[in-house]
Amino acid sequence: MPLTPAKNHTIALVVRQHTDGIEESVQTLLDFLRGQGRRVVFEAETAAHLAFPGVAALSAAEIGAQADAAIVMGGDGTMLGMARQLAPYGVPLIGVNQGRLGFMTDIPLERMLPVLADILGGKFRAERRTLLEGSVLRDGQAIHTGMAVNDVVVARGAGAGMAELRVDVDGHFMYNQRSDGLIIATPTGSTAYALSAGGPLLHPTLGGIVMVPIAPHALSNRPIVLPDSSRIEVQIVRGRDISVNFDMQTFASLIQNDRIVITRSPHTITFLHPQGWSYYDTLREKLHWNEYPSGEGKLH
Amino acid sequence: MPLTPAKNHTIALVVRQHTDGIEESVQTLLDFLRGQGRRVVFEAETAAHLAFPGVAALSAAEIGAQADAAIVMGGDGTMLGMARQLAPYGVPLIGVNQGRLGFMTDIPLERMLPVLADILGGKFRAERRTLLEGSVLRDGQAIHTGMAVNDVVVARGAGAGMAELRVDVDGHFMYNQRSDGLIIATPTGSTAYALSAGGPLLHPTLGGIVMVPIAPHALSNRPIVLPDSSRIEVQIVRGRDISVNFDMQTFASLIQNDRIVITRSPHTITFLHPQGWSYYDTLREKLHWNEYPSGEGKLH
Amino acid sequence: MPLTPAKNHTIALVVRQHTDGIEESVQTLLDFLRGQGRRVVFEAETAAHLAFPGVAALSAAEIGAQADAAIVMGGDGTMLGMARQLAPYGVPLIGVNQGRLGFMTDIPLERMLPVLADILGGKFRAERRTLLEGSVLRDGQAIHTGMAVNDVVVARGAGAGMAELRVDVDGHFMYNQRSDGLIIATPTGSTAYALSAGGPLLHPTLGGIVMVPIAPHALSNRPIVLPDSSRIEVQIVRGRDISVNFDMQTFASLIQNDRIVITRSPHTITFLHPQGWSYYDTLREKLHWNEYPSGEGKLH
Amino acid sequence: MPLTPAKNHTIALVVRQHTDGIEESVQTLLDFLRGQGRRVVFEAETAAHLAFPGVAALSAAEIGAQADAAIVMGGDGTMLGMARQLAPYGVPLIGVNQGRLGFMTDIPLERMLPVLADILGGKFRAERRTLLEGSVLRDGQAIHTGMAVNDVVVARGAGAGMAELRVDVDGHFMYNQRSDGLIIATPTGSTAYALSAGGPLLHPTLGGIVMVPIAPHALSNRPIVLPDSSRIEVQIVRGRDISVNFDMQTFASLIQNDRIVITRSPHTITFLHPQGWSYYDTLREKLHWNEYPSGEGKLH
Repeated sequence: MPLTPAKNHTIALVVRQHTDGIEESVQTLLDFLRGQGRRVVFEAETAAHLAFPGVAALSAAEIGAQADAAIVMGGDGTMLGMARQLAPYGVPLIGVNQGRLGFMTDIPLERMLPVLADILGGKFRAERRTLLEGSVLRDGQAIHTGMAVNDVVVARGAGAGMAELRVDVDGHFMYNQRSDGLIIATPTGSTAYALSAGGPLLHPTLGGIVMVPIAPHALSNRPIVLPDSSRIEVQIVRGRDISVNFDMQTFASLIQNDRIVITRSPHTITFLHPQGWSYYDTLREKLHWNEYPSGEGKLH
Repeated sequence: MPLTPAKNHTIALVVRQHTDGIEESVQTLLDFLRGQGRRVVFEAETAAHLAFPGVAALSAAEIGAQADAAIVMGGDGTMLGMARQLAPYGVPLIGVNQGRLGFMTDIPLERMLPVLADILGGKFRAERRTLLEGSVLRDGQAIHTGMAVNDVVVARGAGAGMAELRVDVDGHFMYNQRSDGLIIATPTGSTAYALSAGGPLLHPTLGGIVMVPIAPHALSNRPIVLPDSSRIEVQIVRGRDISVNFDMQTFASLIQNDRIVITRSPHTITFLHPQGWSYYDTLREKLHWNEYPSGEGKLH
Repeated sequence: MPLTPAKNHTIALVVRQHTDGIEESVQTLLDFLRGQGRRVVFEAETAAHLAFPGVAALSAAEIGAQADAAIVMGGDGTMLGMARQLAPYGVPLIGVNQGRLGFMTDIPLERMLPVLADILGGKFRAERRTLLEGSVLRDGQAIHTGMAVNDVVVARGAGAGMAELRVDVDGHFMYNQRSDGLIIATPTGSTAYALSAGGPLLHPTLGGIVMVPIAPHALSNRPIVLPDSSRIEVQIVRGRDISVNFDMQTFASLIQNDRIVITRSPHTITFLHPQGWSYYDTLREKLHWNEYPSGEGKLH
Repeated sequence: MPLTPAKNHTIALVVRQHTDGIEESVQTLLDFLRGQGRRVVFEAETAAHLAFPGVAALSAAEIGAQADAAIVMGGDGTMLGMARQLAPYGVPLIGVNQGRLGFMTDIPLERMLPVLADILGGKFRAERRTLLEGSVLRDGQAIHTGMAVNDVVVARGAGAGMAELRVDVDGHFMYNQRSDGLIIATPTGSTAYALSAGGPLLHPTLGGIVMVPIAPHALSNRPIVLPDSSRIEVQIVRGRDISVNFDMQTFASLIQNDRIVITRSPHTITFLHPQGWSYYDTLREKLHWNEYPSGEGKLH
């Protein structure tokens, strides 16, 4: 499956801010890509903090229209932000990490050039990730909409008592839940906040959404995994200082009777991984599932 | 979707043993079904403990060949056993519970007749459940095969130290796990043993399989949900007195290097529920997700 | 152990607000206590919402000086508030619940009179509970102090990223923890918020304090139980919108480098229970640890 | 607090079997101890697998009578076995680990000599650990007794259905529990099997015992921490193939109505740690509670 150069051989670069000495790596990458006869552009924010003469600054929409792929140099946070912006345009994403392997940025900086040569030459493993979208409805009006690569989180403030949330799925009443809040996460988000709150890991190809209650009052309120075709509706039954956020990027304050309707987004994200990449390798490394030799590594 | 009487209008009855006073309910049901012009047969084990003149005793295979549907009177255990036997034949199952609502036996005995009239008249909600099948391989030979409605469980004995299991999925190494064992469960099984061991709930339509470690040594060995198209291979790396079971019905003792290969079964089970039935109603009832009025039911 | 009427035979009454039809029960109780030759006083807030001629309204300090015992009619929330106020004075507390058994209000309203006759007559089981106290230190100055019957909670706001907290115990560095926050709970609090966040139950006589992380980033950050002689120091390493609360009653906003120092309070609370009272009876009832007959109550 | 050489300046050595190249370290240690004018003896099993001329082989009882301290070279498993045997005699234990830090073997082999010089010279931190003892009662007769440094575990076999256990504490009924079993652990054991099964960490000075259910049927059956003065009684209500073990060292098969009575042992174990030793340092290292610099180590 070659990465078809359908759009003028253009590659967009996204670089995390505040990264010491990154200019050198960017220059190396620029030289490499230009040496391949490609045009390189910067995403607008990257252009604002990195001064490289002769590199155009493009908005997400322009990247969507012009670029064959976007290379993200940074951590999972940088990738998360860019993935959200580029999702509507279907531009595939390649992640180069700086220092630490990420779930989404899986190419080590020091092996960047040969791996990118392979990927851009068509030797890659494409992996598609789903997104969620949500609307906050108040008195029948949508007062906020958002999109999430990781999760939609409804949560109380630290100074408020428990939230009481009513959850309906596909028009069926599920439960009234009292808790600190509720995480509705994609498989991508299942390794993030949802995991900390006790949720399971979801394989990216599962086609699932996981709902993880945060510190639920009822001990039987366990995480539940739904098909990602589900229409999830969360209503604020009672509670003060409750808000919803999408990937912790956009927020809305909520009041009683507000409803948040969450569905799978029509958009998806495509990550390009090196051939031979395995999701489990990343999990094992990130979660310290050590391949300890037998007889060692014993806690007890 | 009418329940097409394609097979001589035959209904099979499966009745749990050791149920005081069940004969009366069975007679009522017999009269009702015969009154509808249907032929009623007993599953063989049921026939062995219930004496009703003129009711034929049929094996599972015969039921598969002759019956339009099987009505199971009992609890989830009775249903589980029958579902395993009938899965290859595609006979739909209807569950009547005795005393307590079950996850799979959702029609109360006292409302049996009107609900069955509806269902047999074509007013039902059909729900399909997946099964797992597995083979135990030793030196390249399959020494045991099994099928599971709920789960395949690899576990150490109570007198043995931790098991060390190697897990591969679709040919990719996942991890070496030290634990008491590993539960590989269907959505149906996610409300059973897997739940006790800390697993999430899986919606029946999810198309997922959950792997739940039992008392894992590594605290980061969390439950993981895979697509049910996965080929899961569990190898015994070390440990004594390890066995595998399928729904706790069939067992095989395992030795070092044995491999258990688990995939989704080509068979499925179809439950017929009353119209208006909701999976969440059952969950809420069974897991005590109370619809408490606001202000009550507070633990804190 | 008779309840010595050392203080003028005075009993203080504390009654939850907004309780329909409570006046009648209060009148019954007044008549009963006066019939025993006792003086009855109202706690000030109770007096503000209940009009009974001839019943004096006393502050917590006055109750502390004058009353032999305080009877709290309400739920655990009402008891929690009163216990915090009366803790410095050592007045024993008796809890009458309205409708639902509480952890701390264990006398059913309908059996109030005979049980109170016993308790006030000296037939009771006294149970002592520890409290926590804490100070917030900023630049070496205590900017807030508080007392907690249940818990001291350090938590981030819903719109802020993870908090990073440094914990030292008795001068020893324990860990840097990234999470939504940290609950430091008494045995009394172990059945409240700490339980929802995954903490263990602590028996009231244990002499322990439990630290429960809320949605910790590191999966190995498990609840830890310390002796209640411990001096726990929590420092804000990083994070925005972090606050500390004591029983959700008093709050302080925190900034980077603030330290919260938590120790056992020199005060304790004494509950008077009916003879034959058992902590486990309450746990079993509140947590639905059913004494199901064998063979029933099966989830699987 | 000098380690008083009250018993002929004798030090017992316990060395793990099957440790490549350990003879050299043992010789080094022998030379060092003899150079200090001490007599060195081998524990009997050690003597059986290590041939050193002129080193006497002593039973645990003889070590108890003659030795000032026992140095254990190995892992936590070796220490656990020796601690159980020496507990009745009060001989303090010093743990030298081989390769990996242990919870109980905290002196690295390569720093053995200077640390032992300090400890044997009186510069140490003594730490006392509690033990459990238990009796299995059948028809009023004790058919088995055992002692546990870590835990007493009642568990079903892998091929049996759930166990139903009745638990009473200090004569009060706690609950009937259905599960794979129940772990009753000391603070020492709280970092072992109990942790894998979801239990909290217990500080060694807490004076507590934790009961951790294994895969309990009722989701509200949470770990509970009791004072170590408790008398815990576990009765087999129903279930097949149930056994009890003490530290996985001694076992007894159980039948219906058997009761296991567990209390704190009158014996204790004393570990001698280097000065400056901190329990939290060990926890942090063993549980990977990383002291990551801010901004790194992020999972999300």
